[in-house]
Amino acid sequence: MNRESIDTQEPVLTGAEVARHNSKDSCWVIVHGKVYDVTEFLPEHPGGSKIILKYAGKDATEEFDPIHPPDTLEKYLDKSKHLGRVDMSTVQVEAKTHDPEEEARLERIKRMPPLEQCYNLTDFESVAKMVMKKTAWGYYSSGADDEITMRENKLAFHKIWFRPRILVDVENVDLSTTMLGSKCSIPFYVTATALGKLGNPEGEVVLTRAAHTHDVIQMIPTLASCSFDEIVDAKKGGQVQWLQVYVNKNREITKGIVQNAERRGCKGLFITVDAPQLGRREKDMRSKFDDVGSNVQRVDGDTVDRSQGVARAISSFIDPSLSWKDIPWFRKITKMPIALKGVQRVEDALKAVEYGVDAIVLSNHGGRQLDTAPPGIEILAEVMPALRDRGWQDKIEVYIDGGIRRATDILKALCLGAKGVGIGRPFLYAMSTYGQSGVERAMQLLKDELEMDMRLIGASKISDLDTTMVDYRGLSSHVVPVPGDMLGQSTYDSLVSPSFRLSPLTLKAKL
Amino acid sequence: MNRESIDTQEPVLTGAEVARHNSKDSCWVIVHGKVYDVTEFLPEHPGGSKIILKYAGKDATEEFDPIHPPDTLEKYLDKSKHLGRVDMSTVQVEAKTHDPEEEARLERIKRMPPLEQCYNLTDFESVAKMVMKKTAWGYYSSGADDEITMRENKLAFHKIWFRPRILVDVENVDLSTTMLGSKCSIPFYVTATALGKLGNPEGEVVLTRAAHTHDVIQMIPTLASCSFDEIVDAKKGGQVQWLQVYVNKNREITKGIVQNAERRGCKGLFITVDAPQLGRREKDMRSKFDDVGSNVQRVDGDTVDRSQGVARAISSFIDPSLSWKDIPWFRKITKMPIALKGVQRVEDALKAVEYGVDAIVLSNHGGRQLDTAPPGIEILAEVMPALRDRGWQDKIEVYIDGGIRRATDILKALCLGAKGVGIGRPFLYAMSTYGQSGVERAMQLLKDELEMDMRLIGASKISDLDTTMVDYRGLSSHVVPVPGDMLGQSTYDSLVSPSFRLSPLTLKAKL
Amino acid sequence: MNRESIDTQEPVLTGAEVARHNSKDSCWVIVHGKVYDVTEFLPEHPGGSKIILKYAGKDATEEFDPIHPPDTLEKYLDKSKHLGRVDMSTVQVEAKTHDPEEEARLERIKRMPPLEQCYNLTDFESVAKMVMKKTAWGYYSSGADDEITMRENKLAFHKIWFRPRILVDVENVDLSTTMLGSKCSIPFYVTATALGKLGNPEGEVVLTRAAHTHDVIQMIPTLASCSFDEIVDAKKGGQVQWLQVYVNKNREITKGIVQNAERRGCKGLFITVDAPQLGRREKDMRSKFDDVGSNVQRVDGDTVDRSQGVARAISSFIDPSLSWKDIPWFRKITKMPIALKGVQRVEDALKAVEYGVDAIVLSNHGGRQLDTAPPGIEILAEVMPALRDRGWQDKIEVYIDGGIRRATDILKALCLGAKGVGIGRPFLYAMSTYGQSGVERAMQLLKDELEMDMRLIGASKISDLDTTMVDYRGLSSHVVPVPGDMLGQSTYDSLVSPSFRLSPLTLKAKL
Amino acid sequence: MNRESIDTQEPVLTGAEVARHNSKDSCWVIVHGKVYDVTEFLPEHPGGSKIILKYAGKDATEEFDPIHPPDTLEKYLDKSKHLGRVDMSTVQVEAKTHDPEEEARLERIKRMPPLEQCYNLTDFESVAKMVMKKTAWGYYSSGADDEITMRENKLAFHKIWFRPRILVDVENVDLSTTMLGSKCSIPFYVTATALGKLGNPEGEVVLTRAAHTHDVIQMIPTLASCSFDEIVDAKKGGQVQWLQVYVNKNREITKGIVQNAERRGCKGLFITVDAPQLGRREKDMRSKFDDVGSNVQRVDGDTVDRSQGVARAISSFIDPSLSWKDIPWFRKITKMPIALKGVQRVEDALKAVEYGVDAIVLSNHGGRQLDTAPPGIEILAEVMPALRDRGWQDKIEVYIDGGIRRATDILKALCLGAKGVGIGRPFLYAMSTYGQSGVERAMQLLKDELEMDMRLIGASKISDLDTTMVDYRGLSSHVVPVPGDMLGQSTYDSLVSPSFRLSPLTLKAKL
Repeated sequence: MNRESIDTQEPVLTGAEVARHNSKDSCWVIVHGKVYDVTEFLPEHPGGSKIILKYAGKDATEEFDPIHPPDTLEKYLDKSKHLGRVDMSTVQVEAKTHDPEEEARLERIKRMPPLEQCYNLTDFESVAKMVMKKTAWGYYSSGADDEITMRENKLAFHKIWFRPRILVDVENVDLSTTMLGSKCSIPFYVTATALGKLGNPEGEVVLTRAAHTHDVIQMIPTLASCSFDEIVDAKKGGQVQWLQVYVNKNREITKGIVQNAERRGCKGLFITVDAPQLGRREKDMRSKFDDVGSNVQRVDGDTVDRSQGVARAISSFIDPSLSWKDIPWFRKITKMPIALKGVQRVEDALKAVEYGVDAIVLSNHGGRQLDTAPPGIEILAEVMPALRDRGWQDKIEVYIDGGIRRATDILKALCLGAKGVGIGRPFLYAMSTYGQSGVERAMQLLKDELEMDMRLIGASKISDLDTTMVDYRGLSSHVVPVPGDMLGQSTYDSLVSPSFRLSPLTLKAKL
Repeated sequence: MNRESIDTQEPVLTGAEVARHNSKDSCWVIVHGKVYDVTEFLPEHPGGSKIILKYAGKDATEEFDPIHPPDTLEKYLDKSKHLGRVDMSTVQVEAKTHDPEEEARLERIKRMPPLEQCYNLTDFESVAKMVMKKTAWGYYSSGADDEITMRENKLAFHKIWFRPRILVDVENVDLSTTMLGSKCSIPFYVTATALGKLGNPEGEVVLTRAAHTHDVIQMIPTLASCSFDEIVDAKKGGQVQWLQVYVNKNREITKGIVQNAERRGCKGLFITVDAPQLGRREKDMRSKFDDVGSNVQRVDGDTVDRSQGVARAISSFIDPSLSWKDIPWFRKITKMPIALKGVQRVEDALKAVEYGVDAIVLSNHGGRQLDTAPPGIEILAEVMPALRDRGWQDKIEVYIDGGIRRATDILKALCLGAKGVGIGRPFLYAMSTYGQSGVERAMQLLKDELEMDMRLIGASKISDLDTTMVDYRGLSSHVVPVPGDMLGQSTYDSLVSPSFRLSPLTLKAKL
Repeated sequence: MNRESIDTQEPVLTGAEVARHNSKDSCWVIVHGKVYDVTEFLPEHPGGSKIILKYAGKDATEEFDPIHPPDTLEKYLDKSKHLGRVDMSTVQVEAKTHDPEEEARLERIKRMPPLEQCYNLTDFESVAKMVMKKTAWGYYSSGADDEITMRENKLAFHKIWFRPRILVDVENVDLSTTMLGSKCSIPFYVTATALGKLGNPEGEVVLTRAAHTHDVIQMIPTLASCSFDEIVDAKKGGQVQWLQVYVNKNREITKGIVQNAERRGCKGLFITVDAPQLGRREKDMRSKFDDVGSNVQRVDGDTVDRSQGVARAISSFIDPSLSWKDIPWFRKITKMPIALKGVQRVEDALKAVEYGVDAIVLSNHGGRQLDTAPPGIEILAEVMPALRDRGWQDKIEVYIDGGIRRATDILKALCLGAKGVGIGRPFLYAMSTYGQSGVERAMQLLKDELEMDMRLIGASKISDLDTTMVDYRGLSSHVVPVPGDMLGQSTYDSLVSPSFRLSPLTLKAKL
Repeated sequence: MNRESIDTQEPVLTGAEVARHNSKDSCWVIVHGKVYDVTEFLPEHPGGSKIILKYAGKDATEEFDPIHPPDTLEKYLDKSKHLGRVDMSTVQVEAKTHDPEEEARLERIKRMPPLEQCYNLTDFESVAKMVMKKTAWGYYSSGADDEITMRENKLAFHKIWFRPRILVDVENVDLSTTMLGSKCSIPFYVTATALGKLGNPEGEVVLTRAAHTHDVIQMIPTLASCSFDEIVDAKKGGQVQWLQVYVNKNREITKGIVQNAERRGCKGLFITVDAPQLGRREKDMRSKFDDVGSNVQRVDGDTVDRSQGVARAISSFIDPSLSWKDIPWFRKITKMPIALKGVQRVEDALKAVEYGVDAIVLSNHGGRQLDTAPPGIEILAEVMPALRDRGWQDKIEVYIDGGIRRATDILKALCLGAKGVGIGRPFLYAMSTYGQSGVERAMQLLKDELEMDMRLIGASKISDLDTTMVDYRGLSSHVVPVPGDMLGQSTYDSLVSPSFRLSPLTLKAKL
C-alpha cells in the first residue's frame, strides 16, 4: 500500500463535512488524508470505542499509526466505508492544549546526549525514559503486575559468576556462530517486539537495516507496526529473518501468514506459547488511562473494561486453546524449522523434544505475562542437564531471552549451553532515541564487549565456552531479606567520612 | 435496635443540664441523642476512664460509634443509668479546633483518584493512607512490635516462583470452588477484622453487600462495629457467612453467640487461637496517644496503663486459659464445621486433626500478635507434606491468611495445598476509601487477575493446580544481609547515565 | 568521699594564682573547688597530656567528672600535689563560645517527647541521639571499625523465627528465674558499661535504683564513673549485684577489688576476656578529635597517638597477657561464682567447663572490639548442642549479651538455652534521657512485652521454653547481596500508586 | 634522563614558530620546554591522534606528564623529530577557561580535612573523591562494566566472620613475615598500579619512600608514570622491590625489562596474566569523553574508536597470545622468583604448581577487567584446600589482592592460607591527597589495626593464624534479592520514633 498514491476517481470531502460526524451515531475519522466511516465498527474495535470517539470527525493519523500496520484499514474495513479523500487544507488543526509535561519532553529531546556517550545498552534506556512519549514508554517499559519477573530477568545474571581461564592464546577471537542453520556474526538475535512505531515513525524496518549492518538475525513480530511485507522488503542480500506468530483462533489466517513468510524467505518459525492471554501491565494501563480514559464520557452499554492498556487491545485474536496437539499441524504447513517461544519448565522442554520441535526459547515474555515466573537463564540451568542426561542436547537448540544487557550476560547463557540469546527492549530504546545509528551502536557495543569478554574468560571461539567457566550455584535462589526494623534503622547514627572545613556549598558542587 | 425510634415516655434533658455532669464525680455523656450516667462505669471501661472523661457532659457519638456495636449500651449499662433523651438543639456544638493535618486530609478526600485508577489491591491501601482518619489508619495498618511479621506475610510470596505449563487449552477457566462445604465463585473469603466503622460509617455490612455481589464468603468478626444481627440481616439469598469467635471467659456468653449464629444460618465456626492476649501495636498506640493521652489530666489512682491502643481496650474479655481440652465442648454446642484460626506450627496442625477439627487457618493474625512469627504460607509448606505423609490430607481443610495482595499469591497457596485463603485489610482499605464499589472493584480485580494467571500457569480449573507448578525451595529462609560499611557506601562513586545538556530544571519535570 | 566536706586547715588559693600555672612547665587544675599540681603527672595521664593542658590554670570539673570516679585524685595523685581549696568566686568563669550545635541540642532538650511516648527500647535511643552531648553519644554509641558486628548483634535476632504453640493455658505467666543462684523477676540483667556520668550526672547509681524497683540484677563495671562503693551503697534490701573486672597487670590490685566486692555482698564475678586491648572506635575518636584535638598545640616529644577516643585512654592498665592459666588463681581468691565474659567460640566454651568456671557470657563486647566477630546469639546456637552432646548443659550457665532490644530477643535466647541475657546500652540511653524513671519504664516495657510474648508463644513459665519453639536454621548465614548495577537501578521506572488530583502541597502534609 | 639539563648546541625556537604547526599536516608540540614534530607519529599514537591535535602548536606538558614516563620521547620518537628548545617566555599561555567545577575542586583542596582525621583507608578515598582531578579520579576509581566485581572484592570480606580465641597471652604481637624469601614488617605489599602522576606530580617514587619508612615491599608497575629506573633509584638500604610486567608482543623488549630489573635488585617477577586486553571502564571513558572527545573535530579516516579511556590507550603493546607455553621461557631469562598475577580459578592454580611457578596472586585486577569475575579471597578459599589435598601447600606461595581496606581483611586472607596481600588503590588515594605522609599514615593505620586485631583474635604472631579462626561458609554465595514490589514499599507506613515538640528546624541541626 502506498500512502502517497492518489486515486483521482475518489471523492474529495471537506474538513467541515467530516467534522459533523463526530458521535457514536455517526463517526467518521481521517487517517492519512482519507475518510472512513467507522460507526458500525465502534463496538468491535479491539481497543474499545472510547479511543476512536476521541477522534470522531477529526484526523486520527497520529494516534492510529503506531498501533496499526498500514494495511489494517484495507484489510479489516469494508470498502463501502472508505469514503474518499479529504482536502487536508480544510481540516481544522486542533490547537494542542498546553501540556507542560510534553513541552518539557520536547525540550529534553533538544538536549539529548550525543550518541557517542552511550557506552552500554542501559544508557539507551536511560535516554529513552526521558525522551519517549509517555504512552510509548508505558507500553515498552511495562511488565506484569509488580514487574518482579521483569527485573529479575536482568538480576538473575548477577547470580552467575565467571571462572576465567588464563594464559590462553586469545589473539584472534571469532564471535560468529550458527542459529537454526543460519550463520550470523554474533550469537544474539533481535527478538520480536510489538508496535515499533510507538518509538520511531519508521517502525521495525529500522531494526531490519541495523541488523543487516551487523549481520544479525531479526525475528519479525506478528504485532509489528510495519506490515510483514514492509519488513521483508527492507532486508538486503542474504540477511536472515525469522517469523514470530501468535496463533489465531482462525487457523487459516495463521496458515496464510506462515506460508507467506516461508515464501518470502523466512528461515525459522517461532510460535509464541506463553501468551494464551496477553498480560495485565499496570504501568501501561496507567499511562493510557491518563491519556484518554478520564475525559471521554462513558459509552452506554459498553461494560467491557477496555482500559487495560495497549497490550490487551491488540491481542484479542490470540487463541487460548492452543495446545500440544496443534504442533504436528505446523509441521505439515511449513518446512521452516519450528521453535516454541516461551517454554518455562523442564518438563515442557523435554516434551518439545518428543514433539520433534527444532528449538525452544526459554522465556517469560520479557516479564510481561505472569509475574514471578522464572527468568530464562534460570530455566536454562535446569533444562540443559536434563537434556544431557537423556543424550538429547543435540536434538534441539535452546535459546533464552529476557534481561540481557551486557555481553557478559550472553557469555553466561552460552557457557550454560544456550545456542544464542534474543534481545528486544534495548534495541527498541536505541531505535526510539537515535534511530538506526542508535541500534547500530548498541550492536557494536555488544560486539566490542563480547570480543573483550571472550579474551578475558580465555576463549577464542564460541565453541570454547563450557559450564566450567561459570559458577551458577546460587542461580535458583530467590532471596527476600527480612524487612528491617525501621526504628532501629532510622536511629542508627552512621559513621561519616572526614569533613571538609566550612563552606558546604562549594563542597556540594562536585558531588 | 433502631436509633431513630423515639420513646415519647422518656424524659427530655437539655444540653446545659448534661454539661454540668462533666467530672469523674458525676459523668454524663450523650450518645445518639440519649443521655447516660457512666460515673460508676468509669473504672470498668475497658478503654480506660480517660477517653470517657474527655467527653464528660458532652456528645460522644462520633467517638463512640466505630468502637462499639450499637447494642452495647443496651447490653452493658444498667437501665437505671439511661437518663433519657436530650434536646440536641440545646447541646453546644464544640467549635472544632483548627487542625491543619485534619484539614489537609479533608482536602485530600476531595482530590481522591477515581476508582478506575485503582488497578490492584495495594492501590486502595495507598489511597487509604492518605484519606483515612489518623486513628483509624493507625488501628487498621498496625502490627506487632516492629511489624516484621506483618511485612514478611506479604514478602513471603515473593520467595515462591512459578513453573508454568504451556500449550494447555485454557480457553475456559473456572475459578469456583467449595470451602467448608459451601460453594463460592473464587477461593478466597473475607476474613474477620475488627471495627469496620473506623473506616466506613456503615461498617461491616458494606463487606456483606460486596461479598454478595461477587459470591464470596464472609467471616463475621466478634469485634465488629455492626452488631452480629445487622451483618446477618444484610446478607441476601443463599449468601454464605461464617462466624469468628474470641472465646469469652464466661463460656455461656460464647455458647449463646455460637448457637445464635448457627440459628441465623452461619455455615462455619472459626475459633481464634492465636490471641490469648491481643498484641501491642505501637503505631496504634502512638496514634491514640496523640489523640487523647496528652491533653487529659491523669485520673488519680488509675495506675493501669490503658494507653495501649484500641486493640487492648476492646479485648479484655478474651480467655487466656483456652486450651485443647475446650475443643470437644465446641463440638457439643454446635453442628457447624469447626475451624481453628491461628495455627502456627506443624505439631498443632496434626493435633487439630486428632481433635477432629474440620479446618485450620494457618495465620499469625495479620502480623498483629507475635512479631517474627512465620507467615501462614510458610507454615503451609511444612504442614501439607506432614499431612500427606500420614494420609491425612483429606481429613482437614487448610486455609491461610496474611499478606495476600495478588491473585498470584492465591495461586501459590492453592498450588501448595490450601483450600482457600482469607483476605482482610485490603477490603477494609477499599471500603474506607470507595465504600461498597471499592470493595467490589477490589474483588473484581482479583477475579480478573486470577483468571489470567490461571491461563498463564496452564490451569483451567482449581483442581488442576499442584505443587509441581511452584518452586518454593527458598520459602523458609529468613535472610538478613550483613549491615554494610557506611563509609564505603557513601564514598563509592556511582556510575551515571549519559547526561543531558544544560537546563537541569526542565529535565526534572518528567521524573 | 564527700565532696562537700571542707577541711578548714587547707590553704585557700585565688583563681588568679592558679591561672598563672597554665603550661606544661607548671600545670595546676581545679577540680571540685580544690587545686592540684599535675605538672609531673602530665606524661603519665592515660588520656594524654593535651586534654589536661586545655584546662591548665582553670576549672576542669565538668570535663573531669564523667571520666573519673570521685576517688581518683585521692588514690593516684600524691598528697603533696593537693594544693588546697580555691575561692571559686575568684575563678574567672570562661565565657562559653557560641556553639550553634550545642545551642540546638539544649533547645531539643526543652522539647523532649514525654516519657510515656517511649514504647520500646529503641525509642530511648532515638531520643538520646538528639539530646546527649556529642562526645557522650560518641562514646556510648560507637563500635569497632565499621560497626558491622555492633549492628549484626541486633539483626541476628531477625534471623530467628518463632514456632508458637496454641491452645495452652497462659492465664498466669511467671517471668521469674534464677541466675548464678540468685532469684530475679525476669531473665535479664543490667550488664557492665563504662562511664555512666557521661550520660547522667549521677552515674551508675541511677541504674542501681531502677534495678531495685524491678528486682533486676546489676553488674557493676570496673570502669564506672561512680566509685565501686557508691554503687554498692546505693543498693537496697536483698538487691543482687555482680562485679565485672578488667584484670590489672598488677594482680594485687585485682585481688583487692575482687575481695572487697565479695565482702560488700557481690554475688558473682565476671572476668572480661574479650578485651586484651580496648577497641578502636572511630565514631568516638572523631567526636573527641573535634572536641580537643585540633585546637591544642602539639606537645613536644609526645609522639604517642593518644587521640584514640575515650576507650583507649581509660584502659591502659588492662593486662593483655591474661590467659587460661590465670583462671585457677581466681578460684583461690574468691568464693563468688566465676563467669567468663566474652567467650566467642565453641572450643573456648568447652574449655571453660573444663576449667570449672560457673558461667560464660557469649559476647563480642557490644560490637566494640573486633569487627565481624559473631553475635552472642549465634555462638549460643552452636555452644548449646556441643554442651548437650557431652551432657555438660547443667555444668555451666550460659548467658549472652549484645543487641537485645525486644522481649522477643530475650525469648529467642532462652529458647536456644541461655539462662539469661545482659542488656547495656538501652538502659544507658534511658538513663541519659529520662533518668531513673526512664530506666524504670524501659524495664517495665520489657516486662510487659515478655509477659505478652510468653502468652503468644504458649508458655506460662521460663522453663516451658525450648528449642522447638524457634526456627533458627538461617542464624549462621552472613549474606552480602551482590552490589547492584547502578545504571539499571536508576533507570528503572518504578510503578506508582494512583495520583491524587492537583494540589501536591496539601497532599504532602500528612506524609 | 634529567629534564633540567640544557644542551647548548640545541636550536632555540619561539612560541610563535611552534604555534604555526597546529594541524595534522604539521603538528609540533612542546613538552618540558622542548619541541617535537609528531606529525608522522599521529596515526600511531596509542591514545589516538585527537588528544595530540588538541595541543598542536602548544605546550602539552601538563597533559603529557602523568601518562608517559619521562624517557618516552627519547625512546620512541626518532631523534630527527626532536627539534630543540623553545623560549618559554615566548609561548603564549592559554587563558584557562572559567570552569566552575574545577574552581570548586581547588576550593575544596584548600579546605581539606587534616591528615589526622583520616582514621582508616576509606577516609583517604572519601577525600580523594573530592579533591582529585576528574580524569585522574575517573582512571583510578573505575572498574569494568557495572563495577560489580570491583565492589564485590570489598564486600566479600564481610561474608567471613571471626571465631576469636580468648585467654591467649597477646602481650607481644609480632606482625613480621617473609614473602618470596624477603622479610617485611607486615604481610601486605604495595601492588602495581598505573599512572601514579595522575594523582601526585612525583608519581610512584612517593610510594617507594613510604614503603621504606614502614619496611613494606613495593611492586613496580610496567605502566608507571615514573621510569623504572627512577623508582629503583628511590629505594633505600635493603628495601625490597618486585617487578610487575605486561608481556610485550616483542619478547626481546620484555626480556630487556626483566633482566634490567634483576640487575637493579628486584626480588620477584610478577607476570600479569589477567589482561590479554585491558578492560573497558565506563567511568574512565565518560570522564575522558567530557574532557576532550566532544570539542575536537573528527580526524578524517580515523575510524578506530579510541575514546575508550586511558586504560586502552596505554596498553596496545600487550600480547594477547601469551600462554602457558611461554612460562618456561621466563625461567630461562631470570633467576628471580616468578609469580603469576591474576589467577582466577583452582584449575589454573594447580597448573601453576605444575609449571613450577613460585607464587600466584589470586586477583581480578581490582575489578577492572571482567565484571562478575570472583574476588581473590573467594578463589583462595577454594585453592588452598585443593593444594592441601595434593600436599602442595608448600610448593607455592599464594597471594591475593582486591578490596582490602581493613586489617581484618588481611587477617581473613591469612587465616585462609594466603602468604600476604596486595594493596593498590588505597595508597594511590593517600598519595593523591596527602602525599608521602598520607601513604605513611595509611600504612601506620593498617599496622595499628592489625596489631589490635591480632590481640583480639588471640594470635601473637602470623603463624598462629589458621582456618579455625574464621567462619567462611557463606563466602561463595552471590545473593541477589528479589526486586521488591515498589507499590507495597512506598505504601508501607513506617513506624516512627517519638517526635519532639514543635520547632522542627532546631531539631534538624544536629542530624
